[in-house]
Amino acid sequence: MLERFLVPEQDRVYVQNDRMHAATNAIFSKMGLSAADARTSADALMTSDLRGCESHGVSNMLRRYVEWYGKGEMNPTPNIRVTRESDTTANLDGDEGLGLHVLPKATEMAIEKARKHGTGTVVVHNSRHIGMLAYHAMMPMEHDMIGWCVTSGNPLSMVPTFGAEMRFATNPWAWAIPADKEAPFVFDVATTQVAGNKLALADRIGAPMEPAWITDTDGAPVMEQTKLPSRDQYMMLPFGGSREQGSHKGYGFAAIADVLSNILSGTAAGFLLPTQPQMLNHFVQAINIDALTDVGKFKSDMDDFLRGLRETKPAPGHDRVVYAGLPEAEETKIRLKEGIPYHREVIEWFESIREELGLEYELR
Amino acid sequence: MLERFLVPEQDRVYVQNDRMHAATNAIFSKMGLSAADARTSADALMTSDLRGCESHGVSNMLRRYVEWYGKGEMNPTPNIRVTRESDTTANLDGDEGLGLHVLPKATEMAIEKARKHGTGTVVVHNSRHIGMLAYHAMMPMEHDMIGWCVTSGNPLSMVPTFGAEMRFATNPWAWAIPADKEAPFVFDVATTQVAGNKLALADRIGAPMEPAWITDTDGAPVMEQTKLPSRDQYMMLPFGGSREQGSHKGYGFAAIADVLSNILSGTAAGFLLPTQPQMLNHFVQAINIDALTDVGKFKSDMDDFLRGLRETKPAPGHDRVVYAGLPEAEETKIRLKEGIPYHREVIEWFESIREELGLEYELR
Repeated sequence: MLERFLVPEQDRVYVQNDRMHAATNAIFSKMGLSAADARTSADALMTSDLRGCESHGVSNMLRRYVEWYGKGEMNPTPNIRVTRESDTTANLDGDEGLGLHVLPKATEMAIEKARKHGTGTVVVHNSRHIGMLAYHAMMPMEHDMIGWCVTSGNPLSMVPTFGAEMRFATNPWAWAIPADKEAPFVFDVATTQVAGNKLALADRIGAPMEPAWITDTDGAPVMEQTKLPSRDQYMMLPFGGSREQGSHKGYGFAAIADVLSNILSGTAAGFLLPTQPQMLNHFVQAINIDALTDVGKFKSDMDDFLRGLRETKPAPGHDRVVYAGLPEAEETKIRLKEGIPYHREVIEWFESIREELGLEYELR
Repeated sequence: MLERFLVPEQDRVYVQNDRMHAATNAIFSKMGLSAADARTSADALMTSDLRGCESHGVSNMLRRYVEWYGKGEMNPTPNIRVTRESDTTANLDGDEGLGLHVLPKATEMAIEKARKHGTGTVVVHNSRHIGMLAYHAMMPMEHDMIGWCVTSGNPLSMVPTFGAEMRFATNPWAWAIPADKEAPFVFDVATTQVAGNKLALADRIGAPMEPAWITDTDGAPVMEQTKLPSRDQYMMLPFGGSREQGSHKGYGFAAIADVLSNILSGTAAGFLLPTQPQMLNHFVQAINIDALTDVGKFKSDMDDFLRGLRETKPAPGHDRVVYAGLPEAEETKIRLKEGIPYHREVIEWFESIREELGLEYELR
């Protein structure tokens, strides 16, 4: 994550992972989730916070989840049903369940199909927010498989290249590829210039937008550094920003994510879906490495590849070259030991919701 | 393609598709390819030229293919063998055959597996150049399937984000998704800022490089517009260009392409492969739409999606919004009627090689 999105030092409160996990688990249980689903959902959020991806951890979305359960816009006990299936594919009805625990069930099916037949591909319709996409993509790695997934939906935020109307959400892609001794390759990116939840962080800490990150209300790219305008005063650009820097590539990857999650799951294009309540759809695939090549050689080749990347001579002004997943693996080790730095405002929310819901947990 | 890569008007010679196809077919046959393989190879190149993607048509690479066949660096009659296989996957030894006709055989296998089991995934090792990636990704569309592929290899040209050494080729991705009445979505992008073969065009027509397209020999991004330096005086940046504009996303997609084509095919990371002769490896997947949702609804939803994209209100200074594959479908119609505009230097090469190889064809 860019430096600007870190919580400023004077606002940090450090909390140990197990304490925050217990608090989050208690909140999900209170919302009516089964013990297993509450645990999986807390795992997904805490994995984000440990990896330094607090944009997708407990800070931003947990209060929204509580609000949505309260309004009946999410089903705490979804009846997940298979609506179409082949040897290697399935389409699941998520029954308005939170993606944090619904998508792992789809991923488990994909893994099982990949074990039997080489690959497994599962789409989910009628679901809700999934948190950090990488959490789900990483699941197949334990089984010596490559995992990848996309999601999409709403609210809309991104214009297509040269467009003046929003047509996409931030439509992220995640890929996770195991290695032997090196930290695995774990790639998780929005197809906008900035992930939606990072904008919430930017709002909270006043981080500036770079040139070509957003457009004005006419669709003209804002080409100077600027403070984030109010929500209805800007739209987001695809990654790349301008056509010359490849924004048509961000636009294209966003479109593919829309097709795989929304249209292939039997729903419709993201910009045609209702926004209240949110209707989110997902796509996940597991590829069994053993079905294509020798697993031992693959992992050893991955080590050579990843080591070669991190040992690349750095350009002037930079200390080192990293690969996707390496800083996150390093951060996890640090945060497991030193705790996770939350914005004090997040801790205050946890303390107020504890009273409101009549729960017992201690964060400090 | 950006305007700057078009052949300047005064240098254009228009040739009809069927004449250039016949000439190209004759050259491939003379190289020793079977009639079927020569035809497929000519198809692949002419499909590029018709779609306005002349960077991957007959202009740049055909003379290199002739040279490589001459030196024995490509096998005109490869014995393509399956080295590993499951219900839904296969790994093929391309036996040093040109990817233009080897990858279609892999794609046909992927289609057949997808028909039976829902999806098909095939990797190819020990192959050579594949031309325009989209040609291969488009094959599954005729069978109501989504197609996608990646390739990678050498020569190396791209630095990782913040790196001062080349670690990747241009490692492209292509996706093709069918619709009903709308032109299909066909996406084909290099993970560098510019495709390698477009640099050859830039060289020929003197097109300038934009800021953040290339680095100097120390790895520092060149941040002004500049003429393309000589081959050993620059390296290419991942798409996005700078970290702030998402170059880590271009770097990540390049890395995934490297893994899927090189490491998953049982070879090794691209930067560890020999460069003389080129050793190129590929990955292709077909996803049977019917295995996940109703095909009729899918195609109708694709129409709504693509129409919605092209009817998006344009930003100030732009006439319209397009989607990947739309301008190429439009250009194909025009070029089938009016002929394909080649640089006169390309036509001169065809006339000289005709004499050299003792062939008979007329282009003008």
